[in-house]
Amino acid sequence: MQGINPYAKLSRQIGYEFKDTGLLKQALTHRSAAKQHNERLEFLGDAVLGMIIARELYDKFPQVPEGKLTRMRSTLVKGDTLAELARESDVGELMNLGPGELKSGGHRRSSIIADAMEAIIGAIYLEAGLEQTEQVVLHLWKSRINKLDPNEHPKDAKTRLQEFLQSRKLPLPVYEVVKITGKDHAQTFVVHCQVANLNSPLEGVGSSRRKAEQQAANLALETLMND
Amino acid sequence: MQGINPYAKLSRQIGYEFKDTGLLKQALTHRSAAKQHNERLEFLGDAVLGMIIARELYDKFPQVPEGKLTRMRSTLVKGDTLAELARESDVGELMNLGPGELKSGGHRRSSIIADAMEAIIGAIYLEAGLEQTEQVVLHLWKSRINKLDPNEHPKDAKTRLQEFLQSRKLPLPVYEVVKITGKDHAQTFVVHCQVANLNSPLEGVGSSRRKAEQQAANLALETLMND
Repeated sequence: MQGINPYAKLSRQIGYEFKDTGLLKQALTHRSAAKQHNERLEFLGDAVLGMIIARELYDKFPQVPEGKLTRMRSTLVKGDTLAELARESDVGELMNLGPGELKSGGHRRSSIIADAMEAIIGAIYLEAGLEQTEQVVLHLWKSRINKLDPNEHPKDAKTRLQEFLQSRKLPLPVYEVVKITGKDHAQTFVVHCQVANLNSPLEGVGSSRRKAEQQAANLALETLMND
Repeated sequence: MQGINPYAKLSRQIGYEFKDTGLLKQALTHRSAAKQHNERLEFLGDAVLGMIIARELYDKFPQVPEGKLTRMRSTLVKGDTLAELARESDVGELMNLGPGELKSGGHRRSSIIADAMEAIIGAIYLEAGLEQTEQVVLHLWKSRINKLDPNEHPKDAKTRLQEFLQSRKLPLPVYEVVKITGKDHAQTFVVHCQVANLNSPLEGVGSSRRKAEQQAANLALETLMND
């Protein structure tokens, strides 16, 4: 279909038109589809995005301590956020995927388009330099940056694990104290967290039951995420 | 002592002279010493450094896959490397530390000067922009970048844990298989790794004894590092 640019909507959404369509195509190519895939661009894009967001938060919140800046940045650059932005730009429809990945859905697919979003940012940086990439990123992230509240309480690991499992319609985790050592005010708790689709319980250790549970929940989350 | 610039050696080493000495001073101020400390600058410097190194590796190794770029970048920006560079520039002697931190040595001190090194990079970026920061970073890191070998085998977690403990004159870890489930070719191993100065063993799970041990060693390393 001559004359029709498949990337028109993407260009409009991100506010940038690639001169080198080949570069954009590479950013949209998963490693399952071709040798010239997007992983190196993703590596670059991840770093550039992190830097642009860090600078923006540094300037926008001059009184906010480092810990809160770090937490806000994580929220902005995490996979879920990238996948949302990718969906808004129809990245999924434009991707080149291998036959195996074409059928993948859910979490796996989200992670593929999130990576492609980073690769697109890397590609813009290569083609147009930092200043223009900054414009694109700040435009894309604008509403999310404006919504940030530095004092929002971060969700703890147990809450995040529960939400993760619920969103995937999996049973809730079971926590069990398996060992208490030390006496009175110097006790150490060992807790197991059993998650339905993990073979073996995750262990957490802490000076209180709550702390040990949070640690175990954190490990469970990490294990599930890397699955 | 009028006329003597305490920052002369630092400026020479990093190849950059600050216009705003107050900014440099802030980069050299630990949170234990004053309200105007270096943590926000460190947040910024970490991101800028990561980006500059990512771009350099991307350009220098056009054929190297993302996994190896990521590993090389970690080597270049890890705390040990930053602390070495800080030592070469006498950062330790120039720092403003609170009374408690003044006495600290070893690992703790290394981590403080490594953070200051990142803060200095953040401060240069604020004062002079990305291009000049790039020059400073690539000059400082030059010999380390030239020595990189993308095909060098990364050390596994058990080796790293052993080296970590030996360098601190601590006893070696003890590994123990505590559970094997499944049959024949679908077994799951649960291994405990006991480290002398940790209260409770770290648990690893894997489809082989070796994999479970590596996971447990990794957790032990993380726990020790965050101690």
